[in-house]
Amino acid sequence: MENLRYTASVEKWDTFEAVLPGFQDGNPFKDYTIYGVFVSGNERKTVDGFYDGNGRYIVRFMPSFEEEYEFTIKGTFSSEEYRGNFKVTPSSEINHGPVRVGSHLHLAYEDGTPFHCLGTTCYVWTHQSTSLQEETLKTLSENAFNKLRFCIFPKHYIYNFHEPISYPYEGTPCDSSGLNEDNIVLFGDNAIPEGNHWDFQRFNPVHFQNFEERIKDLRALGIEADIILMHPYDRWGFSHMSPEEEAFYLRYVMARFSAYRNVWWSLANEYDLFFHKSVADWEANAREVYTHDPYGHLRSIHNCLEFYDYSRPWITHSSIQRIDLYKSSELTDEWRLRYNKPVVLDEIAYEGNINQAWGNISGQEMTRRFWEGFVRGGYPGHGETYQHPENILWWSHGGSLHGESPARIKFLAEIMQQTPGSGLIPVKGEWDEVVGIADNGAYAIHYYSGFRPGFRTFSFKDNHSYEVEIIDTWNMTVENAGTFQGKFKITLPGREFMAIRIIRK
Amino acid sequence: MENLRYTASVEKWDTFEAVLPGFQDGNPFKDYTIYGVFVSGNERKTVDGFYDGNGRYIVRFMPSFEEEYEFTIKGTFSSEEYRGNFKVTPSSEINHGPVRVGSHLHLAYEDGTPFHCLGTTCYVWTHQSTSLQEETLKTLSENAFNKLRFCIFPKHYIYNFHEPISYPYEGTPCDSSGLNEDNIVLFGDNAIPEGNHWDFQRFNPVHFQNFEERIKDLRALGIEADIILMHPYDRWGFSHMSPEEEAFYLRYVMARFSAYRNVWWSLANEYDLFFHKSVADWEANAREVYTHDPYGHLRSIHNCLEFYDYSRPWITHSSIQRIDLYKSSELTDEWRLRYNKPVVLDEIAYEGNINQAWGNISGQEMTRRFWEGFVRGGYPGHGETYQHPENILWWSHGGSLHGESPARIKFLAEIMQQTPGSGLIPVKGEWDEVVGIADNGAYAIHYYSGFRPGFRTFSFKDNHSYEVEIIDTWNMTVENAGTFQGKFKITLPGREFMAIRIIRK
Repeated sequence: MENLRYTASVEKWDTFEAVLPGFQDGNPFKDYTIYGVFVSGNERKTVDGFYDGNGRYIVRFMPSFEEEYEFTIKGTFSSEEYRGNFKVTPSSEINHGPVRVGSHLHLAYEDGTPFHCLGTTCYVWTHQSTSLQEETLKTLSENAFNKLRFCIFPKHYIYNFHEPISYPYEGTPCDSSGLNEDNIVLFGDNAIPEGNHWDFQRFNPVHFQNFEERIKDLRALGIEADIILMHPYDRWGFSHMSPEEEAFYLRYVMARFSAYRNVWWSLANEYDLFFHKSVADWEANAREVYTHDPYGHLRSIHNCLEFYDYSRPWITHSSIQRIDLYKSSELTDEWRLRYNKPVVLDEIAYEGNINQAWGNISGQEMTRRFWEGFVRGGYPGHGETYQHPENILWWSHGGSLHGESPARIKFLAEIMQQTPGSGLIPVKGEWDEVVGIADNGAYAIHYYSGFRPGFRTFSFKDNHSYEVEIIDTWNMTVENAGTFQGKFKITLPGREFMAIRIIRK
Repeated sequence: MENLRYTASVEKWDTFEAVLPGFQDGNPFKDYTIYGVFVSGNERKTVDGFYDGNGRYIVRFMPSFEEEYEFTIKGTFSSEEYRGNFKVTPSSEINHGPVRVGSHLHLAYEDGTPFHCLGTTCYVWTHQSTSLQEETLKTLSENAFNKLRFCIFPKHYIYNFHEPISYPYEGTPCDSSGLNEDNIVLFGDNAIPEGNHWDFQRFNPVHFQNFEERIKDLRALGIEADIILMHPYDRWGFSHMSPEEEAFYLRYVMARFSAYRNVWWSLANEYDLFFHKSVADWEANAREVYTHDPYGHLRSIHNCLEFYDYSRPWITHSSIQRIDLYKSSELTDEWRLRYNKPVVLDEIAYEGNINQAWGNISGQEMTRRFWEGFVRGGYPGHGETYQHPENILWWSHGGSLHGESPARIKFLAEIMQQTPGSGLIPVKGEWDEVVGIADNGAYAIHYYSGFRPGFRTFSFKDNHSYEVEIIDTWNMTVENAGTFQGKFKITLPGREFMAIRIIRK
C-alpha cells in the first residue's frame, strides 16, 4: 500500500481520487490496465483508471450516497493491489449532483433541483493563455450562464489560426506560419496538411490536467461543462484518427473526466461536417461513451446542416443548431414533440458583428431567441462574436463579454428561477403569442416576441383571482398590473419583447 | 340619337363613356340589356353597359390604340340604336396603360414601363366620410404607394362597426346599435344577423358612383385600384348571396369598372373564411370576371390560412397573405418558383400596435419585410394599424399615416426605380444573404436583413471594375464605397438592415 494517496473524505457527487505508482516502461497509456471497484451500502461500481504520466496512475470516482465506501484498485499497472475506504459527507449548497433528464422534458439535478439551463460557448478557451482563461472564469462568475460548451481538441478556423497552449498527444504540429485572417485556409475533409507528427497512442497529460482543472473551476461556479469530444475544424489530424484511435481516446477521456459531476458529453460539434464519417461511426463512438462513463452523464451530438436523429436511445437531449436562417428557437416546441427529449438550443446564432450570419445577430435578437426557447419549454444557448482588435472572440477564446444580451439573460435567469416545478411547458395559446405554463396552469407566461400588442384581453371561466405582471424582457422590468377575475384587459406599451405573467391566487 | 352624350376625344387607355336614356319600368338592372361595339383599325370589342339609375344607361370603353374609333350601342334598354365615333389621342405622361405580367415574373405597364408595385391597404376607405376620403387621397399623394387594396362591400370587423356611407343594394341594414369595440360581435359563417332587407337585383348607383370616382382619383395619382370583390367580414349578408346573385353582381362590376385602366380584381379577401363556399364557387366567379372584363385586368384571390392554388390559369399573380407567424416575404422566391407568377405580398402583417400580431409589427420589421420581398423579386404590401382615439386605422379607413415605415418605403421606391430592366431576379448567394440581380448580373443588391456583418468580401474572376454602394435601408442613405476589381472587402457598420449594391462598370 506504499505510495497510495487518496481522498479520505469527499462530499456526495464530488470526486474521490486515488493516485498510485505504476510501471513506466513501454507505453503505459496502452500497455497496462487499471481499474477501481467501489462498494458502499447502496452502490457497487467498477471504474477505469488512467495513466497520468511520470509513473502516476489515477482512479477517480463520484459517489452518489452519503455513507462509507471501500475500494480496491487492480490491474496490470502494478504488481500491488490497493485497498482503502473513505467517507462520503453531505453535499454542500452548490452541489446538487449531476444533471439528469427530469419530468416534462426538462432537466434537473440528481437531487431534484430544476436545472434551468442557460448555455454559452467558448469553444477553445482552455487552449488560450492562462491569463485569458482566468479572465473567462471571472466573466462567467459575473454572469448567469450555467453551461459551457468547449472542445478538448484545438480549433483551426477563422479567428483561430494560432497554436493552442498544449496538444492532446505527444508529437509536433504542422507548420502554421502564414496562416492568418488575411490568408484564411480551411482544410476540407481529407485535406489535413502534411507535417503533423503525432503518436495517437500517447496522450499529453499536461493537456488533460489543465482541462480538468477548468472542469473543476466551472464546477465551483455551478457551471456544467458540455465537453465537445470531436470537431471538424482541424489542421492537426485529430478529426481523422482511425476508429480504434478514437475509441482509445474516448476511453481515456471517460476514465479521466467522468467522475466530475458537471460534465456532459457532446459526441461532436457539427458531426455532419466530418464527411468521411458515417452514422455508424458516431454510433460506435456513442457506445464507447455510454459503456465507459459509469455515471450516465448527459449525452448528445451537435449538427451543422442536418439534425442527428435525436430519438436514438443513447441520446439524452437534443443539441440543436438551427438550420433555418430566420427561425431558430421558435421551433423549440416542435422539436420537443418530435424527439420527446429536452431541447438544448446550442446554436441559435451569436450576438456579434462578424461576417457570417451565425455570428452577427443583435443583442435584442439574441434575447428574443432566448425567450422564445424558454417559454416553449427548451434551453437557449448564447455565444458572442464581436470583432476584436486582438481577435479575442468570446465564442472561441472566452475573455470578456461586450454584448447587450448577457445582462438580459441574467434577468431571464431570475424569471426562470421563479418558475414553479421543473420549467415551462409550452401550450397552444392564441395564434399570435407564445405561451408556457407551470403548476398545472396556475402559472403562465405569455410572450409576444417581436410583436407589439397595445393590449391583450384574457378570459377565465373560474372564480379564481389572477395576479398579472407585465414583463419587459429587454428593459428588464416586472410591473404589477393588478389582480383580476373573469374577463379583463391588460394594457401594454406597444413595444417589442413584452411578456405577461399570470399567476393564479 | 337624341340624348346621347359621349366623350368626343379620349387618350389611349383612358375611359370613353357614353350616357344614354333608356327604359325605367320594371327593374332596369335586370330587365334590359345594353352593350357597345367598338371598332377601330386595330381592335374590335363588344362591351357590356349598365344601368346607372334615373333612366340613365352607360357604356364605358378603354381604347388601346391611338386612332379613330366607331361605336354602336344596342340592347333592349331602348328602342333606339346609338352610333358615334371618337378620336383616341396619345397617352399622357402618367398613363402607361393597364398593368400586365411582364418578363421574369415581374409586373409592367402595357407600354413596357416596369411596375415596381408597392401596395398598401385601406379596406373600406370609400365607405367613410367624404372628408376622410379626401384625407386618404392626400396621404396617398404624399407617399410612394402605387397600389391600393379596397373593398366594394362594407366591412364588419373590429374597429369597423359603424355603418358605411352607402350600401351597394337597395334596402335597409340590420340594427347595429350596441356594436362597438367593447361589445365585439363577429358573425361566423351562416350567422348573418336577422333584420337585413336587401334587393340583390337592384344596385344602389350612388354607392358605385362614389366608388368609381375614387378609382379615377387613384388613377390620377398613378395608383392601381386592387378591388376586392368579396370579403367575409359581414353583417349584411353580402357574403351570403346565391351563386346567381353573385354572378349578377360581378357582371355589373365588370361593366362599370373594367374600362378604368388601373383596376385589378381580387376575387376575395380571405376566401378561405367563406366556409360555405367551395373552390368550385370561386372558379365560377373567376369565370364571370374573365369573361366579362374585356381588357384582361390582373386577377387573383387572397387567402387567410391556406393559399389558393395560384397556378390556376385565370390567376395572373399570387396575392399572398403570409401563413407563418415569423416568416413572410422571406419566402418570396420560393413562391415565385412554386407558382411561376409574380408574387404580390398583400399581407405580410401591418405596422401598428393593435392586439393582433397581424397588426402590430414595428416600422423596422415592416421595412425589413419590404426589402426581403423586393430583393427576392416580389412585391411587398403595407398596412398600418395603430390604435387611434377615434378608431381611424389606415388599414381600413385610410386617413393619415403615423408609422415609421412609409418614409422608408418611399426610399425603397427610389431604389426600385433605379433597377435596370423589369426588377430584381433572386439568385443564390452566400447562405446568409439575400441577393437579387438585374441586367444579367451587372447590377446586384446583397441584402443582410436583421443580420449585422461588420464586413463582407467579394471575389470577381473577370477584369471588370465594380462600383460598390452601401445602402442603409433604415436610415435611408446610399454611400459610395468605391470602385473595385477582383477580390475586395467592404466594411459595414455592423448595424441591422444594411445592403450592398454592386454595379459593373
